[in-house]
Amino acid sequence: MAFQGKKLINDPNDVVTEFIEGLVETYTGLQYLDGFPEVKVVLRADVSTATYNKVAVISGGGSGHEPAHSGFVGEGMLTAAICGDIFASPPVDSILAGIRAVTGPMGCLLVVTNYTGDRLNFGLAAEQAKSEGYKVETVIVGDDCALPPPRGITGRRGLAGTILVNKVAGAAAAAGLSLADVTAEAKRASEMVGTMGVALSVCTLPGQVTSDRLGPGKMELGLGIHGEPGAAVADLQPVDVVVSHVLKQILSTETNYVPITRGNRVVLMINGLGATPAMELMIAAGKAVPNLQLEHGLAVDRVYTGSFMTSLDMAGFSITIMKADQGILQRLDAATKAPYWPVGADGAWSCLLAGNHPPAKIPVPMPPSRSSKSEESLSRPLQLSQEGRILEVAIEAAANEVINLRDSLNEWDSKVGDGDCGSTMYRGATAILEDMKKCYPLNDAAETVNEIGASIRRVMGGTSGIIYNIFCKAAYAQLKANTKSETVVTAKQWAEAFEASIAAVSKYGGAVAGYRTLLDALIPAASVLKERLNAGIDPSTAFLLSSEAALAGAESTKQMQAQAGRSTYVSGEILASVPDPGAMAAAAWYRAAALAVKDKCQAS
Amino acid sequence: MAFQGKKLINDPNDVVTEFIEGLVETYTGLQYLDGFPEVKVVLRADVSTATYNKVAVISGGGSGHEPAHSGFVGEGMLTAAICGDIFASPPVDSILAGIRAVTGPMGCLLVVTNYTGDRLNFGLAAEQAKSEGYKVETVIVGDDCALPPPRGITGRRGLAGTILVNKVAGAAAAAGLSLADVTAEAKRASEMVGTMGVALSVCTLPGQVTSDRLGPGKMELGLGIHGEPGAAVADLQPVDVVVSHVLKQILSTETNYVPITRGNRVVLMINGLGATPAMELMIAAGKAVPNLQLEHGLAVDRVYTGSFMTSLDMAGFSITIMKADQGILQRLDAATKAPYWPVGADGAWSCLLAGNHPPAKIPVPMPPSRSSKSEESLSRPLQLSQEGRILEVAIEAAANEVINLRDSLNEWDSKVGDGDCGSTMYRGATAILEDMKKCYPLNDAAETVNEIGASIRRVMGGTSGIIYNIFCKAAYAQLKANTKSETVVTAKQWAEAFEASIAAVSKYGGAVAGYRTLLDALIPAASVLKERLNAGIDPSTAFLLSSEAALAGAESTKQMQAQAGRSTYVSGEILASVPDPGAMAAAAWYRAAALAVKDKCQAS
Repeated sequence: MAFQGKKLINDPNDVVTEFIEGLVETYTGLQYLDGFPEVKVVLRADVSTATYNKVAVISGGGSGHEPAHSGFVGEGMLTAAICGDIFASPPVDSILAGIRAVTGPMGCLLVVTNYTGDRLNFGLAAEQAKSEGYKVETVIVGDDCALPPPRGITGRRGLAGTILVNKVAGAAAAAGLSLADVTAEAKRASEMVGTMGVALSVCTLPGQVTSDRLGPGKMELGLGIHGEPGAAVADLQPVDVVVSHVLKQILSTETNYVPITRGNRVVLMINGLGATPAMELMIAAGKAVPNLQLEHGLAVDRVYTGSFMTSLDMAGFSITIMKADQGILQRLDAATKAPYWPVGADGAWSCLLAGNHPPAKIPVPMPPSRSSKSEESLSRPLQLSQEGRILEVAIEAAANEVINLRDSLNEWDSKVGDGDCGSTMYRGATAILEDMKKCYPLNDAAETVNEIGASIRRVMGGTSGIIYNIFCKAAYAQLKANTKSETVVTAKQWAEAFEASIAAVSKYGGAVAGYRTLLDALIPAASVLKERLNAGIDPSTAFLLSSEAALAGAESTKQMQAQAGRSTYVSGEILASVPDPGAMAAAAWYRAAALAVKDKCQAS
Repeated sequence: MAFQGKKLINDPNDVVTEFIEGLVETYTGLQYLDGFPEVKVVLRADVSTATYNKVAVISGGGSGHEPAHSGFVGEGMLTAAICGDIFASPPVDSILAGIRAVTGPMGCLLVVTNYTGDRLNFGLAAEQAKSEGYKVETVIVGDDCALPPPRGITGRRGLAGTILVNKVAGAAAAAGLSLADVTAEAKRASEMVGTMGVALSVCTLPGQVTSDRLGPGKMELGLGIHGEPGAAVADLQPVDVVVSHVLKQILSTETNYVPITRGNRVVLMINGLGATPAMELMIAAGKAVPNLQLEHGLAVDRVYTGSFMTSLDMAGFSITIMKADQGILQRLDAATKAPYWPVGADGAWSCLLAGNHPPAKIPVPMPPSRSSKSEESLSRPLQLSQEGRILEVAIEAAANEVINLRDSLNEWDSKVGDGDCGSTMYRGATAILEDMKKCYPLNDAAETVNEIGASIRRVMGGTSGIIYNIFCKAAYAQLKANTKSETVVTAKQWAEAFEASIAAVSKYGGAVAGYRTLLDALIPAASVLKERLNAGIDPSTAFLLSSEAALAGAESTKQMQAQAGRSTYVSGEILASVPDPGAMAAAAWYRAAALAVKDKCQAS
């Protein structure tokens, strides 16, 4: 089942040069040497050897590990990065070109990952540069903790720990230290760091066939970053178990690869291998911290989580632990313009707050307490006001109408939707009638509207439930804003609340007039209501007149193409035979309420 | 061929809460509300509603798009992010909790992606918050350009353009603007941005089966970020073609989704969808910039390349184009502590340099010119000095010995290596003899050693070539440093150069004494040479005595376990029957040179 790996690239031979071109387009503080395809060197645009009075820090190696190392070029970290072809050490001339391009009188430090090709090519370039009069030092990083010693000449591979060493070296150089001191700090850092990787898939080289070395349900432990097989293959475990295993191996007192013992302070790096989502990396970070604290007795001073030193498109991560002290932390925290060094993990908080992080979690804020007045009113009043009585009959009539319409609504909806419009509305109406008897503060119109929303929210699911909830909430907010502490609502205020409700439903629901929704009933009603009230007509008459507009609007939905919900999938012919059930329901309860209010007003 | 997707997670139901825990471990400037599992809200640790005098900017939506949106919480961008479950809108109570936690008297802006669930839940929360007295505004972002209008109520999906809108809103809020002004800026930004995606694989939800919807060699164009199918499936093309197609569609004058026309200025975002390596994203960025300039007549002011709004582990990217003006650029460039906003893409250079980037590429620096003295000397002198004559016979003897030994070396190497040691050394020796006649400046010992290195580099490949090149280069550097402008080299200086060579080979090659390499011949020789010279013995005698140590050292490699190269795979029994061919070759040429020098000195 082998097939060519899919990548969004052009010619597989050009991936590194095209990567560099994109990198400098993105980060305008970076430049590259005009020596493609052989010389692939990324350097700081703000460094001129003529005037550069700091130690240059140069790293590099085979490509395929992006953003390493070119993404770490910038003030405070690398001065230049030398890029080889994919997984191939850069040639000597390329390294030399990089050294010559950025090395001033303070000299340069080469930070080299421990692979034979890199050691030899960087080594020869260093010796050549020295013979040209440059001051050059080299630190070789081998932080792999996956394989038991002795490792002979090959030694431990250089992995993501190199990034931390580069940060230490770059910060030391930026602080103005001498080449000897920068080298000493980098060397010390390289001796305090250990890394181990775990992968769910192997990487595919550009233009190559994807390997199926790892089957379903398997993971590889202790692998390198060049597609070489890991130290062991195992069944995939929960990441808790994986993290625990990897940390145990890095901190093993048997191999004794890192000089870290219980009670020490450390920094942690969770490094994605290329195709690992941020979510999984963060989960691993969240598990590694307590594990280091509880299982290994280590204080974790900094956590760096991201994809720093990858292996093309490999899925998985490596964990790096570095022993930390004030000197190391100062270098890691120092400001840098390197684009890929993580921002915000720099312990600025712990510095500011004398070692105390702000708490990681804080309580969920309580809703603002209701005023005592409202709280009292949150039960059905013993004595209803005139307005309360009118409100009661309106609600009762509207709810009963919806209850009566259940089957018709369901029938219409079965033709143009999923057939449950009537049942959903029925649930809401029933709950409203029940709750009204128990707790609606009918003398306070605004609070009653809010409680209708709460009843709906409790029993009506789906889009219609939340739409009606928004409808009530917007009316409530508008009524509260308009009436202040008054409980009596004028007809004009009702009309304004109605308009606010329609606006909110339109805004959040996304529908406008003509979309074949409940708005096609409500918008004409609101328009007529406002117009009649402005004309000075008696409010209950205006309400009744507007309800005729609602009915007409609902009927008119037959002629509309659906723009929302499931109806959009239904043919125009069928749509023409039924009105929108949502619009019909809205018109019906509105009409019923208007009739009841008219009756009540005439009666009183 | 469906199998469960492999992920480094624990319980699939806990991925979002565990992600947030890792996020706040990594970025200590972030906090979360203690309301897991329902309330998943990430907020700035430095904001207290009691004292916060800026507009709060809140975004959010379903999870699975990390780092969006929680990774963009920080001063200058989001004040809080509300996280739903994977691809599910957060519940109203969770949004409300976030609003209450960060909203002060200036109010808050909700930036909501255009999905029905998000619109309704954020909408209801907004209305509820308003009724509690908060000032709340909402901007809905729908930047998708993949599907032709009209889109009805569903409208255009919210994609990675939302990140840019959030940055504009966050910067406007940080600048102290009022809620109305922040809202207006965010709304304007949302109307100037368009996005389209392309994928090579679909995403796998935690605990779900991996879909094989896309087969080998296929890509999907115009897809969303929730695993929903794209607008079209096509054969995978070079990324040049893909980028060109996507840009054409975003900027189509037919759909007219973004108000961008020829001559405008734009910003570009290349957004990885979760499993796309930085290399591929940068390649796309490098291709999109010239395409926008040349095909569409647009000036590209900023490029943001990275994984900002992902779709779990989907491979692919989206491209976002936003129309830019000074106002927008000022907001995008404004400082922020949001961890995932890209650093270094902020146009600081163009500001500093009055609109001019530093050049993206600069010439490869030339090697320092040789002094005129050395240049003259880079040919065989007409007249050889006494030292020049001795050097000549030594080189001649050493090279001829290696030539004579070719077959023996190959034979030994065939038992313990790849059988080409003799041939490789032969090539080097032959080249040295040829070049010596042409151009070795024999009267200048240091330069001659350097030229030997150059001859070797020209013809000897592999590890041995580079090792000998390092050997010569280190000797040269040491001789130059010791002798300054003198061309006569003392015996002590030769011995020091020899030691420097051995140190360099050991350092860069990684071998030490006892690793069964050429060092096992050279180290004893250097040791004896130094000792004899210090004892005051005649230099040519000391050289000869030290060459006996070299031979003995080479012979002793039979007893050594290999620690380097291919010999490490060979059994001890076989190794015991032959010496290391590299060590034998080194001892042989050293011995031959010593004999020739002794002869020459006695003769003269």
